[in-house]
Amino acid sequence: MPSLFVAQMKLHDLVQKLGGEAVGEVALPLAGVATIEAAQPDQITFLANPKYRGKLAQSRAGAVIVAPGDRDATTAPRIVTVNPYAYFARVAQLFNPAPVYPPGVHASSVIHRDAEVAPSASIAEFVSIGARAVIGAAVRIGPGCHVGDGAVIGTGTRLEARVTVYHDCRIGANCIVHSGAVIGADGFGFAQDEGAWVKIPQTGGVTIGDDVEIGANTTIDRGALDDTVIGNGVKLDNQIQIGHNVVVGDHTVIAGCVGVAGSARIGKHCQIGGAARILGHLEIADGCQISVMTLISKSISVPGTYTSVMPFMVHAEWLRNAAHIRHLARMADQLDHIGKQKK
Amino acid sequence: MPSLFVAQMKLHDLVQKLGGEAVGEVALPLAGVATIEAAQPDQITFLANPKYRGKLAQSRAGAVIVAPGDRDATTAPRIVTVNPYAYFARVAQLFNPAPVYPPGVHASSVIHRDAEVAPSASIAEFVSIGARAVIGAAVRIGPGCHVGDGAVIGTGTRLEARVTVYHDCRIGANCIVHSGAVIGADGFGFAQDEGAWVKIPQTGGVTIGDDVEIGANTTIDRGALDDTVIGNGVKLDNQIQIGHNVVVGDHTVIAGCVGVAGSARIGKHCQIGGAARILGHLEIADGCQISVMTLISKSISVPGTYTSVMPFMVHAEWLRNAAHIRHLARMADQLDHIGKQKK
Amino acid sequence: MPSLFVAQMKLHDLVQKLGGEAVGEVALPLAGVATIEAAQPDQITFLANPKYRGKLAQSRAGAVIVAPGDRDATTAPRIVTVNPYAYFARVAQLFNPAPVYPPGVHASSVIHRDAEVAPSASIAEFVSIGARAVIGAAVRIGPGCHVGDGAVIGTGTRLEARVTVYHDCRIGANCIVHSGAVIGADGFGFAQDEGAWVKIPQTGGVTIGDDVEIGANTTIDRGALDDTVIGNGVKLDNQIQIGHNVVVGDHTVIAGCVGVAGSARIGKHCQIGGAARILGHLEIADGCQISVMTLISKSISVPGTYTSVMPFMVHAEWLRNAAHIRHLARMADQLDHIGKQKK
Repeated sequence: MPSLFVAQMKLHDLVQKLGGEAVGEVALPLAGVATIEAAQPDQITFLANPKYRGKLAQSRAGAVIVAPGDRDATTAPRIVTVNPYAYFARVAQLFNPAPVYPPGVHASSVIHRDAEVAPSASIAEFVSIGARAVIGAAVRIGPGCHVGDGAVIGTGTRLEARVTVYHDCRIGANCIVHSGAVIGADGFGFAQDEGAWVKIPQTGGVTIGDDVEIGANTTIDRGALDDTVIGNGVKLDNQIQIGHNVVVGDHTVIAGCVGVAGSARIGKHCQIGGAARILGHLEIADGCQISVMTLISKSISVPGTYTSVMPFMVHAEWLRNAAHIRHLARMADQLDHIGKQKK
Repeated sequence: MPSLFVAQMKLHDLVQKLGGEAVGEVALPLAGVATIEAAQPDQITFLANPKYRGKLAQSRAGAVIVAPGDRDATTAPRIVTVNPYAYFARVAQLFNPAPVYPPGVHASSVIHRDAEVAPSASIAEFVSIGARAVIGAAVRIGPGCHVGDGAVIGTGTRLEARVTVYHDCRIGANCIVHSGAVIGADGFGFAQDEGAWVKIPQTGGVTIGDDVEIGANTTIDRGALDDTVIGNGVKLDNQIQIGHNVVVGDHTVIAGCVGVAGSARIGKHCQIGGAARILGHLEIADGCQISVMTLISKSISVPGTYTSVMPFMVHAEWLRNAAHIRHLARMADQLDHIGKQKK
Repeated sequence: MPSLFVAQMKLHDLVQKLGGEAVGEVALPLAGVATIEAAQPDQITFLANPKYRGKLAQSRAGAVIVAPGDRDATTAPRIVTVNPYAYFARVAQLFNPAPVYPPGVHASSVIHRDAEVAPSASIAEFVSIGARAVIGAAVRIGPGCHVGDGAVIGTGTRLEARVTVYHDCRIGANCIVHSGAVIGADGFGFAQDEGAWVKIPQTGGVTIGDDVEIGANTTIDRGALDDTVIGNGVKLDNQIQIGHNVVVGDHTVIAGCVGVAGSARIGKHCQIGGAARILGHLEIADGCQISVMTLISKSISVPGTYTSVMPFMVHAEWLRNAAHIRHLARMADQLDHIGKQKK
């Protein structure tokens, strides 16, 4: 990664680039972002939740991003905007721009003569790219990646080190794929025959939209016949498993270690907590929130938050109580019986 | 991957290769397989479940594979066989044969002079193969794989890109190992000593049978003293973790994200659902089915289906109900008390 | 890996190196370690639990490691020590020393001219090391690893094949990192803005202490602003996910498939069972034990064992009972009501 220069900006530079209203101005330019507690005079922070107003008074931050309702919560130089946290994220991007890699193919890499690699793409060490693959403009392929035959990597997308994209899979523009991710391995499809399992060829692909981020060691299987589809703006954390023919709707976020079984359809703008599991062949409506470690075992048509968490206890307490789950039906029967006797 | 030619076959070609009985014949040769809903006149589909007979009438499929009981459920050209789904899988394999790779070692790869590589094996880019490793006939080692000292890869087995096989591990014949899989990392063995942990050398290996498929980013640890063993015909999905000295019986299938702790013995012909977890040092009988996300915490000697799923609820409903699990023992006591009072 | 010579040792050699007291002596030197059941006359075993004394009588082991209380439980040549299991682990290390790799950089690897690589370090095939990276003395970097710009690998640490260390991450001395591990991928940080997600640059790093072991395909994300921190002597099994800004205290062990969400602080000397999950922004006291598959959803300040396991049942039994969890609040109300009526 080339070394990054440190940007220096005043509030008027920020509002010029990102909008919002500057109230006051810093004396010296800002050099970065930080939390309310850690910010120094050359850093800008943000106040997204009015309950932290008290901390603002003690902050050493040179400036702060606030919502209209907190416009007068401080006398420090500030930017007023409707969504301080999102604004903060964009300011952080300005101070920490994505790395820019030199165009060209490293001498150690092996590019099939029938692959198309844009001149502005940057191909690192030990990359292998198959026949008919298409690598778009300003793409970065990190060290040790493999891009299979006929795969397509869209403009501005970055594969970090050691990513695998199997043949004929398509990744959109401006995506980030972290190390160890595997896109397009075979879906898990077998037919049973006299006790043994016969492989069903997985002949679909994977289609990934634009502005998608895929975490380290996440796996997205290719479809059995049709494609597995990841929508635009989807954010997948690390170690997620997406089965064949799953569809994930636009702008859905999925936390680490989630498993989605084959042919599940997850709506748009969903939020799925870590280590949740979605069974196959079901549908989850747009805008659902699935809690951490929750198993969704049937379709959900009404947006909302859904949970199947077992509460944790001191182990001795758990020993006393959990065993009774095995007798809940009998307990319910006893209660019914008592209720009827009273009538 | 070399480009695949498209096979064209009529029903009599299929029954000649795969058995079954052709009833009628297609006018033009078939070019592929598809689901009942999606099939076109040049494709063959299957009917495994009589309840989809209705869909068959509307299907545009050129032919269909049916069970003897559905022999007369359609007048379309058809193949009658006892297991339509397995037959369909085999037909799909005929139309989509596994890729054939050119034999030889890519110039970029590094093969130890004391390794044995069969002349018919295909070694891709950036592969490293250690001393005394044995690579069998018609093996494919994908880009970026590492095969350690003394490891053995059996005839016809294919490692996709970026697979690691540690030293002295053995993979049988006709296996498929997907990208990112790690075979033979150290088992998790430590002895506690005054608060710190002393590593116990993991000196066993991994032995994998024939016809095994191993999913992307799955990990199978080497044994502490003896080997970890995966039987013939076992199918492992993605992101599975198999601890040291585990034994998985022949033809068992395990879905994604399952964890099997050290020294567990899983029988033959078991089916283990996604994200299930099997504790260590226990035994599961042949033919067991473990439900998705279920924890097996003691041995199972009777074949059957076992489940420990917490049902999911709307979050508000969960908040009301789940907390009472912490008081089940008291509730059971109250019920007992009431029952005794009545006597 | 270079081939290992087989050490041969008598009891007096062992106590000279490791302490303890030899009682009696073997006639011929020992060549290895084994379990009580499997040990041969040229192997040494151990007795850590008095309940296995009976097995000792039948063991063919040439010698045995016992606690002071078992000093007279056998007449075989023996070593008496306060912690037989830890002693056994150290003896096993003597018989199975870590591999020693030849110093130097393999010709195929690409080391940035501004990286520092100690002359005693061993860099395998297809390794890429970025600018300003520092590779310490006696380090081993396995085949296909990538070490990013400014990353630091401490003395004596070993990266197995295909490990990724992102830029500016630091690994201490004498660590082992297994294949497929990813250190320093971006934390999962996004701000919501009108339904889409704006990336928050992850500008912290990862700091890993000394004597840490990291399992295959485990991922440790870099911090958002500050570092993610793994303490000294921590042992992480395979397929663990550590979120950004997590702190794991010294000598904590975490079993496979655990997920720790962002900014959680786990104390020292904790033991976390497989597939457990720790929510973000909470704190777990030193010395806690978290059971397998347990979700910790709030801070724990009292050391102890904590559990949230749903017990497993035969599926039909589960069907009868689990549904009642959805009605626990009503059942509790009914019980209260009955209780009050009796007064």
